Amino acid sequence: MGPHPAVAAIRLAVRRALHDILNDHQAPRALAGRHPGRTAERPPSPLVLVACSGGADSMALASALAFEAPKLGIRAGGITVDHGLQPGSDLRADEVVLRLRELGLSPVESIAVTVGREGGPEAAARDARYAALDAAAERHDATAVLLGHTRDDQAETVLLGLARGSGIRSLSGMAAVSGADGRYRRPFLQLDRQTARKACMAQALPVWDDPHNADPAYTRSRLRHEGLPALEKALGKGVVEALARTAQLSRDDADALDAWASQAEASVRDAAGLLECAKLYALPPAVRRRILRRAAIEAGAPAGALFARHIEEVDRLITGWRGQGAINLPGKVVAQRQGGRLVIRQG
Amino acid sequence: MGPHPAVAAIRLAVRRALHDILNDHQAPRALAGRHPGRTAERPPSPLVLVACSGGADSMALASALAFEAPKLGIRAGGITVDHGLQPGSDLRADEVVLRLRELGLSPVESIAVTVGREGGPEAAARDARYAALDAAAERHDATAVLLGHTRDDQAETVLLGLARGSGIRSLSGMAAVSGADGRYRRPFLQLDRQTARKACMAQALPVWDDPHNADPAYTRSRLRHEGLPALEKALGKGVVEALARTAQLSRDDADALDAWASQAEASVRDAAGLLECAKLYALPPAVRRRILRRAAIEAGAPAGALFARHIEEVDRLITGWRGQGAINLPGKVVAQRQGGRLVIRQG
Repeated sequence: MGPHPAVAAIRLAVRRALHDILNDHQAPRALAGRHPGRTAERPPSPLVLVACSGGADSMALASALAFEAPKLGIRAGGITVDHGLQPGSDLRADEVVLRLRELGLSPVESIAVTVGREGGPEAAARDARYAALDAAAERHDATAVLLGHTRDDQAETVLLGLARGSGIRSLSGMAAVSGADGRYRRPFLQLDRQTARKACMAQALPVWDDPHNADPAYTRSRLRHEGLPALEKALGKGVVEALARTAQLSRDDADALDAWASQAEASVRDAAGLLECAKLYALPPAVRRRILRRAAIEAGAPAGALFARHIEEVDRLITGWRGQGAINLPGKVVAQRQGGRLVIRQG
Repeated sequence: MGPHPAVAAIRLAVRRALHDILNDHQAPRALAGRHPGRTAERPPSPLVLVACSGGADSMALASALAFEAPKLGIRAGGITVDHGLQPGSDLRADEVVLRLRELGLSPVESIAVTVGREGGPEAAARDARYAALDAAAERHDATAVLLGHTRDDQAETVLLGLARGSGIRSLSGMAAVSGADGRYRRPFLQLDRQTARKACMAQALPVWDDPHNADPAYTRSRLRHEGLPALEKALGKGVVEALARTAQLSRDDADALDAWASQAEASVRDAAGLLECAKLYALPPAVRRRILRRAAIEAGAPAGALFARHIEEVDRLITGWRGQGAINLPGKVVAQRQGGRLVIRQG
C-alpha cells in the first residue's frame, strides 16, 4: 500500500523542488568533478533547510523534506523563527525544534528575532523573519530554504496586491523561486492548504494553529476567513486556482514589460542622458510609465511610496502638456518639463 | 445656487465625454467645412444616444445628456431595450420611453429583443442588447451611444475576469471607449454608483430597480451584494477604486504586450510562414504565449474556449521538448512540433 494521497502529493511537490535545486547547482559541481584527484575539495552534499512555524503547511513541508532529501543525497535541516509576539512563543519554538529533530532533520535551530514596526505588524514580522532565514542560510552554507506557502496563500497575496491597485506587478504574488541566487523555494505554491493539513493528519503529525491566522486585526486573516469565502460563494470554487494562475501570468507579463522598458530607456535619452519628451510620447503608455517610474526611483523616490497616480501626473507632462509646473513626488523628488526634456531629480 | 454636487458630478462627466466625441469627429467636419458653398451637404448636428434601462445609473446619464448636449450643439436621443425576460417588461420599456421624452430627448425608441441562451443568461442578454443598440445607432446615424456603467460595475467586471484566471486582458474590464469607430462611451466609469443614485434623487427622477440586480441566481448580483462587500470589509473601502485602477493599468499593459506579439510574430516565422521553435524559445514567455494563442485562433480555435492551460501545453513543445505527440486544442485544432517548426492547424 502506498502513502496517503495527500502525503504522496506533498512528497511529489518537494521531490520536484529538490530536483530543480540540484539542477540549478549542477554546473558548479560538475566543474568540481573535473578534478577527481582533489577529493578533499569535493563539496559536501548540499544542505536544504525548511522554514517551519509548526503550522500544518510547514510541518507537512518538513516531513516531506525529511523523506525525500536523503534519497537524493541532500542533507535536510530546519529553522523555526520565534517572533516573540506572544507570551510563551519561546517554548513553542523549542517544541517545533523537537518535532523537526524527531523527523530526522539536522541541523535544526530556533532563532529569536525582534519585530519592529515599520510598514505595519505583518510586514515588520516578515522582514525580521527573512533576515533571520537569510542569516541562517549563510551560517549553515545552505543551498536553499523551503517555504510552506500554499496556493491559498498565493490567492490571498494576489487579492492583497489587487487592493493596492498599483498594477500587474502587485498581482504577481509570490514567486516559486526568489531571493539571492534563488535561495527561497516554495514547493507548495500549486498545492492547496487542505492537502497539507490532510498530510499532517495522515502522518499523525501534531500541528499548531497560529492564533494570528484567525485574528481579525490582521488583513490577511480577514481575507482568509471572510473575504475569500465570500468571493468563492459568489464566483465559484475555482477562485483560488484562478487567482494563483493570475499570479503566474501577471508575473510573466510584468517581467516582459520591465525588460521592454529597460531596453527602451536608453533610446529615449539624449546625449546628456535626459529623457526626451517626444520620444517618450511615441512609446506605448505601459512602457512609458515604467520608464517614468524607474527614473523617479533612480532620482530617490522610495518605491513603496510611489503610487500609480504619481506616475500618471508625471505622464501628463508628456501626453497632456499645457505648461504645467513642477510635480512633487515622494522623497522630495521633483519632475518637470524643460525645453522638450523631462527632468526628474531630488529638489 | 449651483446644482447638487452629485448632479454637478454627472454633468461634468458627460460634458467631458461629449467634448471627446466632438474632438474625435472634428476632422471629417472640418473637411466638410472647406466647401462653404455647398451648405446643402453640411452635416446635421451630431446625434448622441443614451442607452437607458430606467435604473439609477442610466437615468442619471440620460438627465445629464439632456442638460449638456444642447449647449454643445449636439442632439440627444435615447434607446431602451426590452429584453422580454420578465412579465410586463414591455410596459416598463414604455414607461422609460416616456421618461426619456420628458427629459427632452428625441428620438426616443424602445426596442424589443429576443434573448438566446448562448454563453449563459447574462452573456446572452448582453449580446442581444448590443446588437439592438448597434442597429439603432446605425438607423439613426448616431455619432455615439452613452452607457451608464459606473466604477462599481467596473470593479465587478474585474473580479469576474479574475475568476476566469485567464490573464491581464480579462482584468482590464470595460473600456471608456469601445465598439466600431469608438461608438460606445462610458462617461461614468470613474464615478461611483452612489453618486448616480444621489443625482437622480436630487433631480426627483423616479428610478427602477431591476430585480435581476438583486437576484442571487446571477453571478454579478452575488458579487455585488455579497462578494464585494466582504472584500471591502477585509481590505478596506478603497477596493472598488483599486479594482478600477487595476482595470486601466491592465488594459494598457495588455495592449502593449499585444503590440509586441504582433511585431515579434513576423520575425519568428520562416520563409514558408511556419513558426520556428528556436526563435520562439528566445522570446519572453509572455510574448511567446501571446503568439501561440494568436496562431491557435488563426487556425480556427474559438477564442472563448482557448484557456491558459491549453497555451501552456503548446508552450511546452517549445520550452520542454521531449518528443511529445500532437496536442489537441478546441475547435479541432492540433499543435505539433515537426523538425524544429511548430505546426498549428485544423486537423
